[in-house]
Parts: sequence; C-alpha cells; structure tokens
Amino acid sequence: MTTLSPSESNQGLGKQRIEALSDAIFAFAMTLLVLDVKIPKVSGALVTQEFLVQTLLDLWPKFLSFVMSFVILSLFWIAHHGYSHFLKRTDRTFLWINLLFLMVVVIVPFSTDFLGDYPRQRIASLVYGCNIMALGLTLYWQWEYATHGHRLVGSHIEPKLVRKGKQRILMGILMISSAMLLSWVNPALSIVVYVLFPIAYLRPSQIDRHWTHAHD
Amino acid sequence: MTTLSPSESNQGLGKQRIEALSDAIFAFAMTLLVLDVKIPKVSGALVTQEFLVQTLLDLWPKFLSFVMSFVILSLFWIAHHGYSHFLKRTDRTFLWINLLFLMVVVIVPFSTDFLGDYPRQRIASLVYGCNIMALGLTLYWQWEYATHGHRLVGSHIEPKLVRKGKQRILMGILMISSAMLLSWVNPALSIVVYVLFPIAYLRPSQIDRHWTHAHD
Amino acid sequence: MTTLSPSESNQGLGKQRIEALSDAIFAFAMTLLVLDVKIPKVSGALVTQEFLVQTLLDLWPKFLSFVMSFVILSLFWIAHHGYSHFLKRTDRTFLWINLLFLMVVVIVPFSTDFLGDYPRQRIASLVYGCNIMALGLTLYWQWEYATHGHRLVGSHIEPKLVRKGKQRILMGILMISSAMLLSWVNPALSIVVYVLFPIAYLRPSQIDRHWTHAHD
Amino acid sequence: MTTLSPSESNQGLGKQRIEALSDAIFAFAMTLLVLDVKIPKVSGALVTQEFLVQTLLDLWPKFLSFVMSFVILSLFWIAHHGYSHFLKRTDRTFLWINLLFLMVVVIVPFSTDFLGDYPRQRIASLVYGCNIMALGLTLYWQWEYATHGHRLVGSHIEPKLVRKGKQRILMGILMISSAMLLSWVNPALSIVVYVLFPIAYLRPSQIDRHWTHAHD
Repeated sequence: MTTLSPSESNQGLGKQRIEALSDAIFAFAMTLLVLDVKIPKVSGALVTQEFLVQTLLDLWPKFLSFVMSFVILSLFWIAHHGYSHFLKRTDRTFLWINLLFLMVVVIVPFSTDFLGDYPRQRIASLVYGCNIMALGLTLYWQWEYATHGHRLVGSHIEPKLVRKGKQRILMGILMISSAMLLSWVNPALSIVVYVLFPIAYLRPSQIDRHWTHAHD
Repeated sequence: MTTLSPSESNQGLGKQRIEALSDAIFAFAMTLLVLDVKIPKVSGALVTQEFLVQTLLDLWPKFLSFVMSFVILSLFWIAHHGYSHFLKRTDRTFLWINLLFLMVVVIVPFSTDFLGDYPRQRIASLVYGCNIMALGLTLYWQWEYATHGHRLVGSHIEPKLVRKGKQRILMGILMISSAMLLSWVNPALSIVVYVLFPIAYLRPSQIDRHWTHAHD
Repeated sequence: MTTLSPSESNQGLGKQRIEALSDAIFAFAMTLLVLDVKIPKVSGALVTQEFLVQTLLDLWPKFLSFVMSFVILSLFWIAHHGYSHFLKRTDRTFLWINLLFLMVVVIVPFSTDFLGDYPRQRIASLVYGCNIMALGLTLYWQWEYATHGHRLVGSHIEPKLVRKGKQRILMGILMISSAMLLSWVNPALSIVVYVLFPIAYLRPSQIDRHWTHAHD
Repeated sequence: MTTLSPSESNQGLGKQRIEALSDAIFAFAMTLLVLDVKIPKVSGALVTQEFLVQTLLDLWPKFLSFVMSFVILSLFWIAHHGYSHFLKRTDRTFLWINLLFLMVVVIVPFSTDFLGDYPRQRIASLVYGCNIMALGLTLYWQWEYATHGHRLVGSHIEPKLVRKGKQRILMGILMISSAMLLSWVNPALSIVVYVLFPIAYLRPSQIDRHWTHAHD
C-alpha cells in the first residue's frame, strides 16, 4: 500500500507547474509578436533618410496589430491569473482545457501577422476575431468547469463571484462577435472594436471592487 | 570538514530548477511550432478575398501538424509532470537522461515542420514517428532509472504503480510503432494514428484513478 | 459571504506571477536579439577563409548593437528587480503599467535590428533612443505610482530612498535625451552615448550603498 | 530611518530571480538551436522520396552541431546550477558577471549556426571554440568572485571544494584551447574534441562524489 505523507499528496496535478507553463507560453507568444514587425534590409545606394522614414511609417498596420495583440494577450493573462487564484486543486480534464486555451494563445502571433499584412481584408479580420473569441470561450470553459459544483474551487466561494466572473468573459465574447459582424460592413470598423475591446477591462470594474472587498 | 546545515543540503541536484528548465523548454518548443504556419505576403495587386481564403485553406497540413504536435507535447508534458511528482531526489545520471528527453522535445518543431511541408511523403512521416518514439523511450528510461531499486523515489511507492506507469508509456510506443509500419502502406494512415494517439490518454484512465486514489 | 482564509487572500494580484512573466519576457527579448546577427549562407564555390573572415568583420554593427541592447536590457531587468523588491502589494493599474513596460521591452529587438542594419542613419538612432527612453519613462511611472502615498510599498519606506530611486532613473532619461540630440550632429555620437550609458550604473552607486545599508 | 523587517531584507539581490532569468535564457537558447536545422521547402514536381532522404542526410553537419551545442549548454547549465547552490547572497558585481555569462550563452545559437553552415572552415571552428571558452571563463569568474574570501558563500565551505570546482572548469578551458589549436591542423579534428569534451563531465567524477559526500 502507498503511504505517501500529506506533503507528498498534491491533490491532483500541481497548480504551480501549470502556472509556470502558462506564464512561459504567454511570455513567449507576447514576445514573438514583435518578430513580424520588420524593416526590410536594402543595399546601400537606396538608403536615404526619407526612404527609411517612409518604410517606418508604412509599418503602422504591423505595429498597430502588434500593440493590439500584446494588450489583448495581457488582458487574458491577467484574467487567467485572476481565475487560477481561486483554484484549490486541478484534474486532468482541467489541465486539457487549460492546454487548449494555451494552444489558442500560441496561434495569436499567426493571426496577428495575417491581420498586419492584410488589414483591409475581411478574411484577415475574421480569422483574428475567431482567434480572440476562442480565447474567450476556452477561458469561460475553464472557469465553468472549475466552479461547477465547486469542482476545483473552495466550497465557500460566493455564487455571485462565480456569476460575475462568467459575465465578465461573456461581455468580451459579445464585443468580439459584434466586431466580426461589423467586418461584413467594413473590416476597418472591426479593427476599431478590437482596439477598444481591452479598454472595457482596463479600469477596476464593479466586479473588481467586489473581489478586492472579498480579500480584505 | 564541511558543516552544511540540513537546509543547505538538497539531496543531489535540485528538482525545482530541473522542472523550471523543463517547463520553459516545453513552453518554447510548443510556441515555436506556430512559427512555421505562415501565410506568404504578396504585393497588393494579387490580393483578393478568394486568393487569401484559398491560401488559408492550403495551409491545412501545416495547421493539422501544428495542432497534432501541440497536443502530443502537452501529453508528454503532463506525463513528465506526473512522474517527476514522485521523485524524492535526483542525481547526475537522471539529469542527463532528462536533458536527452528535452533535446528530443526541442527537435519536435523540426519534424513537425517537415511533416507539414511534405504530408504525403513516407520519409516525413517516418522522421516524425521516430521523434515521437524517442520521446516515449527517453521518458520510459527516466521512469525506469528513477524507480529501479527505489533509486530516486520514496521507499514506499507501490510496485503496481511503477509497473502501470511503464505500461502506459509502452502503450504509446506500440501505437507509434504501428503508425510507422502503416506509413509503408500509406503515409496518410500513419498520420491518422498520430492524431488518434493522444486520445487514448485524454480521459483519466484506470491507472489515473489508481493514482488519484493513492493520493487521497 | 466569502470566508477566504488569510492565506488565500493575496492582497491584490500576485507579485510572484508578475515577476515570473517579467523575467520570462526579459529572457526572451534578450535571447531574440541574437537572431538578427546572422552570417548569410553562400554556396560552396564562393566560400574562402578570407570571405568568411570579411563577412564576420562586416557584422560588427550588428554585433555591437546586440551587446549594447543586451547590456541595456540587463540594466533595466536589474532595476525592475530592485524596485519590485519593495512592493508589498499590487493592483490592476500597476499591473497595466508593468505590462506597458514589458511591451516596450519586447520592442527592443526590433529597434536593435533597425540600428544594426542602418548604424549611420539618424532615424535608426532616434528610434532606438525613443525605445530606451520609453523603458526609462515606464519604469519611472511604475516607481512613482507604487510609492505615491505609499500606495503599494511598506509604510516605513524612507522618502529619501524613494527620491534617490527616481533620480537614478531620471539620470538615465537625461543621458538618452542628450544622445538623441547628438544624433542631429552625428548618429555615431549618439551610439557612443548609448554604449556609455550603462557604465554609469555598473558599479554600486551611493544609492546602492544606501540600500545595502538599509538592509543590514 | 528605514525599519524594514527581516523578511523584507533579502541580503542583496534575490538569488531566486537570477536563477529564473538564467533558466529561461538557457532554455530559450537551447530551443533556438533547432531553428537553424531546416529542410528547404521545394515545389511539388521536384519532390521525390530520394530527394528528401538526400536533403535530410545533407543536414548532418547542422544536426551534429545542434546536438553538440545542446549538450554543451546542458553541461554549463548543470555547472551553473551546481555552483549557484552554494551561494548565500548576491551583489551587483556578481549579477553583472552572471549577465555576461548569459550573454555568452545567447551567442551560442549564432556560433552553432556558423559552424553548421561551414563545418570545414577553420574560422567557423575558431569562433565556436571562442564562444565555448568564453562560457568557461565567465563561469570561472563567477565562482572565483563568489568564493574569494567567502564573499558570497557560507563561511564553512571547504577550501578543497572551492579548489576542485575551479580545477573542473579549468580542465574544460584547457580542452577547448587544444581543440582550437588543432583547428590549425584540421578543423575536423577540433570538432571531434568539441564532441568529446562533454563526455569528460558526463559521469559523476571524483569531485562529484566529494560533493555528494559533503551533502550526506
């Protein structure tokens, strides 16, 4: 018979290493975004001050999509961070949902690159929107799975907190959905929503104040 | 004479930093996979909605091999995670087996890229299979080395648990072997097995339930 | 009502995971710098010992900008490390300032690559200077936000220490400003200042001695 | 006066975050090595089974240099790991020596790529040798700085252990020096020494046994 001491038992798979993998993948995906913002190297004769300034200015769609994706990934990192704080244990199913979430994170540099190359094309805007929506959906799934019947969270977590957490994610999914619909009118409009989308989460919201209160 | 206090002695090389290096290498290898899924940038006149949709659709072998490798690496990360949970100490030999395992992990983006470029070629399928099999073999070696005579694990670990852990890895090696044999018939068949292979590990198996039980 | 135990409450968002994300992003950005130092592969007939030595020597602007950026990023990593040591708690606003800082860190490989490709062009030197100055400004903002009214630091932190910390950052911003002005005279002069800039921070300064003293 | 509680004081800069940065940079550099092992994508008509097998076989110098560098970086990671275990505190000078060491680590993918592209050229072998020797020298410097007058290590550390640690690094520097000299005879000979070099450290040596003993 196994007689592991209490300190050996980790109540399922360790939360700490899942966080370590998640942080590293987020950090890497956020850093990879910059790899696609590149000024082509041209040979000496062509290089003038004016040429380089123009080349820099022409990069603005790449640069905008870099900033946008960095901010959106930051937002999801904070959210992931916030939810995992309430976890008391993990299980194999949760781990796989989390890995699916991380796979969607890894795809963000791809769809950012695509949008930066073709900012006026509806298909690029739709692919980007799908990617962000998948982030929202897999995060929602994680939170739903973890809190359902207090599966992985403490037994005294407030139902209100669980509900508010879900509403917060659904709000984002709704915004991204409308952005995708707007791309049928004009792809530029959808990009405006993608840019505005994180602003809704920037300041501490009512839910945030609630959480802070809960921790006092 | 050295008079290191007990807190200074770490019973061999620290398990925590080995895990940190392993998690980081896994995270990078998993993120690097996306670098090879790229839509070529073409100049303005050629870009139509239809052209881009077609280019996206043509990417499916790259995308499928990305997802497949991400899932397989996730699987091995979970397994590595699960086994290292039982380690009580490490030694230099174990460290080198672990580093060999990580070297094989790092090669996965290479063989994934190869398979994504030439999905219909037997050699690409064989190289991919060899890579995954090497993951299984080095993981098996780690577990065998660590548990042999309770070398690096606690003395009260059940022989049954050790045996089940080995069987679980051998099952995967067997599946990959048959996939490689199938590639002589048709490379597409072997890819089907590579895709199905992680499904066998997705749900908590009997062994999993056993482990969970052992931790209660 | 939530009845989280004291150990569950983390006084805002966890400092540890913010540090983990920061360390990982710094590490990647510092490693990505080397990706742009490349010797072109040429076919067999052209390769002579002299050709390769010449190609290596021609890389010196790339290599110099790599070393320069690695040292500057190291400097900011140490500074970030030093300031975050005094943090007692975090909040959402601080998190976003930190993420803005990390976004600027991620841009460093881009501006380094640009400067390495066009070391004699004023625009490259100015872009690089702006990037480093943005590092200084966002770090200043973090420290200002954290210490204002002891918002995120312990209540007994000395006003002198806070002031010295700010002066230390402002000194760097001043040096970078003058480098950028010098680039109007000659871009090479500004690069000399970028190279010399970290030297001012290399040795323990008076402030350092003060901090060390504070810790005894 | 500052009245930081004992828990606030960290005796200089935190060892934990230095290790985190080091582990991440090592992991990233080790993973980047694989980026240069690439099979060129050619269009459909040219692809035959024979062509791909030949292309794979032609990659052997790239693959050998990948494995060699992965093993050498592993070796230095283990050594760095071993030495930092004895650190009781850090200071700014030590931090900079460590960052210099990490800068040399980051250059390894560059010199590996160079050697893999031009395995028969003396200059490639010399650049590679210089890189590895710089790893040894900066590691030696760290250990020398940390142990001199027990600056950063515990006061009861054995002089013999300090001396053996230095000898172990010097042995490697000597091997690399002779490899570089051999490259004047034939570059292939120097590569043989680079490959054999880590083997001298693979098994627990007398010094290792001494350390293990010290920990019992």
